[in-house]
Amino acid sequence: MRPVPGEAKQRGLLVVLSGPSGVGKGTVVARAMQARSPAARRLRRSVSVTTRSPRPEEREGEDYFFRSEVEFQRMAEAGELLEWATYLDHSYGTPREWVEGQLEDGYDVVLEIEVQGAMQVRERRPEAVLIYMLPPSWRALRRRLAHRRSESEEVQQRRLEVARREVNLIPRYDYWICNDRVAPAARRFLAILEAEHARVKRWNVSELIGDTSG
Amino acid sequence: MRPVPGEAKQRGLLVVLSGPSGVGKGTVVARAMQARSPAARRLRRSVSVTTRSPRPEEREGEDYFFRSEVEFQRMAEAGELLEWATYLDHSYGTPREWVEGQLEDGYDVVLEIEVQGAMQVRERRPEAVLIYMLPPSWRALRRRLAHRRSESEEVQQRRLEVARREVNLIPRYDYWICNDRVAPAARRFLAILEAEHARVKRWNVSELIGDTSG
Repeated sequence: MRPVPGEAKQRGLLVVLSGPSGVGKGTVVARAMQARSPAARRLRRSVSVTTRSPRPEEREGEDYFFRSEVEFQRMAEAGELLEWATYLDHSYGTPREWVEGQLEDGYDVVLEIEVQGAMQVRERRPEAVLIYMLPPSWRALRRRLAHRRSESEEVQQRRLEVARREVNLIPRYDYWICNDRVAPAARRFLAILEAEHARVKRWNVSELIGDTSG
Repeated sequence: MRPVPGEAKQRGLLVVLSGPSGVGKGTVVARAMQARSPAARRLRRSVSVTTRSPRPEEREGEDYFFRSEVEFQRMAEAGELLEWATYLDHSYGTPREWVEGQLEDGYDVVLEIEVQGAMQVRERRPEAVLIYMLPPSWRALRRRLAHRRSESEEVQQRRLEVARREVNLIPRYDYWICNDRVAPAARRFLAILEAEHARVKRWNVSELIGDTSG
């Protein structure tokens, strides 16, 4: 992380990114992390714990930490999860300690999580930045889900139904992004982080002003 | 203005940019307007009315509208000014009608104005975005002011004194930008506008969501 002259070192942002399954959250975050800007360099992606089975292309520790129901329950009870939620019969959670360490070191940490978990974060961490990603149209979303050949028609239908209910929670989010194309969506995502760092309320004002006699 | 798919047409943002005299507000806005991004293309700079005399390089209607005290007073009383304030013995104001028209057409309008005027905008237009620009150091600011050879030492000293008092109002602003170098400062400025457009509270949510049966 390159310090900006005149800016004191600042704690990282806790960023929540939600949106219908299949909208492209992971793709947009991956693109944002590849950008050549200070905002991209200080971005880290949180890896969730889940009780569901890996899809063929998914890797342990990269896409998810795959854990048994018993182990997940133990983590939740031991307070090791920053938030956790159930979605389509499986549990998902965010490992707390790793996230805290990254924020402390000044990295912005993005959690790609469902609305249930997002509302827990909103409650527990009022300073978090909540972003909701929308598809350009619902037709486009159906098409993207249909391309996931590993899933049955029935699972796709349930994902769509969940999405249609969830969008009613958009007013609880701070920002929304339309994923019309990956590059502009990634640019908007990074712009939000850059702007949030510039919010006066996130700073100690006397530190900002500095020694006016200098 | 190129419409973004999935985004309804949106009213422009009323943006206030304040900061000590000599900090480089005009230079940063000019650079931002030259950028090749949607945020740059929808940016317009408001030209203020003033009662002070033009500096050699200043052009009527480009830098300011230069008006007599009597005419300025008339405009203020007729409600033709969105805000107005006195700074170092002269009056400055923002022509209301032009600004309203631009906002209506979807352009973001930036007012480079003093803190007095900014506080009037904060009061009258709660939806406005207030940004304060700081120099990398106070020493740097003194140096920049000294380069304005058209001004006496005494005027420079008064500008510095005003700046030292004004910074106490930074907590009333939404964002701050450090003008360490022009390019990154312009980038941060545009990021703030892009993020503000993405704020959920600036949208009609049912319009965002669209027809979920589609």
